[in-house]
Amino acid sequence: MPQLVRVQNFMLSRDGFGSGEGQSLERPFGHADPAQLASWAGATAHWPNRTDPGGTCGLDDYFTRDFHNNIGAEIMGRNKFGPQRGPWENEDWQGWWGDDPPFRTPVFVLTHYPRPSFSLSDTTFHFREGSPQEVLEEAFQAADGRDVRIGGGVETVLEFLDADLVDTMHVAVAPVELERGERLWRSPEDLTDRFHLEVVPSPSGIVHHLFWRK
Amino acid sequence: MPQLVRVQNFMLSRDGFGSGEGQSLERPFGHADPAQLASWAGATAHWPNRTDPGGTCGLDDYFTRDFHNNIGAEIMGRNKFGPQRGPWENEDWQGWWGDDPPFRTPVFVLTHYPRPSFSLSDTTFHFREGSPQEVLEEAFQAADGRDVRIGGGVETVLEFLDADLVDTMHVAVAPVELERGERLWRSPEDLTDRFHLEVVPSPSGIVHHLFWRK
Repeated sequence: MPQLVRVQNFMLSRDGFGSGEGQSLERPFGHADPAQLASWAGATAHWPNRTDPGGTCGLDDYFTRDFHNNIGAEIMGRNKFGPQRGPWENEDWQGWWGDDPPFRTPVFVLTHYPRPSFSLSDTTFHFREGSPQEVLEEAFQAADGRDVRIGGGVETVLEFLDADLVDTMHVAVAPVELERGERLWRSPEDLTDRFHLEVVPSPSGIVHHLFWRK
Repeated sequence: MPQLVRVQNFMLSRDGFGSGEGQSLERPFGHADPAQLASWAGATAHWPNRTDPGGTCGLDDYFTRDFHNNIGAEIMGRNKFGPQRGPWENEDWQGWWGDDPPFRTPVFVLTHYPRPSFSLSDTTFHFREGSPQEVLEEAFQAADGRDVRIGGGVETVLEFLDADLVDTMHVAVAPVELERGERLWRSPEDLTDRFHLEVVPSPSGIVHHLFWRK
């Protein structure tokens, strides 16, 4: 099996937004309430951020338990790492993900402002300016035969879709409307020229959208 | 997360049969046509027996790709290993699974007729007479912190269900009627006193049944 480029558990409002307007340190999703987008995942047994036992093992859990499955590296946009714009003013701040980030692989953060790599628990963050192709090449090497996750946000997923570098994509659509913010699509059908699409409603109310390259 | 006991990709007819009548060397599923039960899995990209590239990456593929995910051992009934009954007459015959069995972990075969362990590629077969609890204890140790798969057939799954040792169970129900053979249930509702159940129809025509312990 060749190495794949995968978007996983990418959370979207019914009207196509991955986050709201006005991202800040206190509000990573801007005006959106992250619980409305993410609570389906938090309810599952294998949610990577879960700290207590329990949780569901139904359909939604297949998606959260696939998060680490054969993934060897992640590429994320700068806004998924933190709210800063422009040059880094405080390199002591090590991102939104706490002392034990859920990635547990090398993570490549796309930014025009490089800074030194550092590790938190099993995750190492690298900061790279480069084309999607160039950063993907480095991520494939770091993944050592395993797949590379495109972690988001919306702008980063769109960059990799535009460069035709995405092999599979799982988008979890929540029953909420955001009206403004970062938009991935007007309709999932926008992508069906290049991708197969299966639409799978979950008992949780989430609708899973599964894309794979034609 | 504690070690779990998982039934995965267990294939059933709509009327509840896992295999037909009259198992033989030539017909592992008796009068049933295994293609009718298993073709949904063979169509996916991650079917463990796949030898050529390609395949679908939709809902069904989440189930086949979960086959190896955090599994450290399998327990199977003797009839999943081969069609022989009674004492082993020919220990040179090493089972139905070829030179490269898809399990890639220790496999414990339940039998009243022990024989020496042997390895084929990454899979080692052990032959054990013992209660489900005793064999599970050994499988947990062999799994080294990972989960144990109950591989079937029907009689073996029923033994572990009866002993209340199953934590999660995925049953893939195919649109075919077998009428006779090895029956797992009259209705999936038989199990909902002890298990949560989600029923998820797939675009392939298979209906996935997901059980987890209450």
